[in-house]
Amino acid sequence: MAAILTTLSFVPQAVKTIRSKQTNGLSLLMYLTFTVGIGFWLAYGIYLMSWPMIIANIVTLALSLTILGLKLRYG
Amino acid sequence: MAAILTTLSFVPQAVKTIRSKQTNGLSLLMYLTFTVGIGFWLAYGIYLMSWPMIIANIVTLALSLTILGLKLRYG
Repeated sequence: MAAILTTLSFVPQAVKTIRSKQTNGLSLLMYLTFTVGIGFWLAYGIYLMSWPMIIANIVTLALSLTILGLKLRYG
Repeated sequence: MAAILTTLSFVPQAVKTIRSKQTNGLSLLMYLTFTVGIGFWLAYGIYLMSWPMIIANIVTLALSLTILGLKLRYG
């Protein structure tokens, strides 16, 4: 439940950023650090062969990379 | 390591939002869902009596509540 909520919480942010292109309020350092952190969670999930962790973190990684990409593009 | 990065990643966002008050790019739905999700992770950590989880999620909860509060205040 917790993993679903924290993972899916990035969907509305990604959608809003894709639509509005308003990235000035977003912190680049946050999404850089967060994306690397999720990378570690994904590696840890693979290490444990825990499919819920692997799937949740692949989704979160895709969402945070999307937001990070938009932030880099629109500044 | 993963927990430290994903937890601390919210510090730059909280600092940026506190300073800039630029919340229009932030998704209210994200921070509502995320904050509830972190609440579940905290409850899960207490259930497991896992101090690393409890401490990491208390910090993340405080940061996401701060950002959520600013978003509610500045719209």
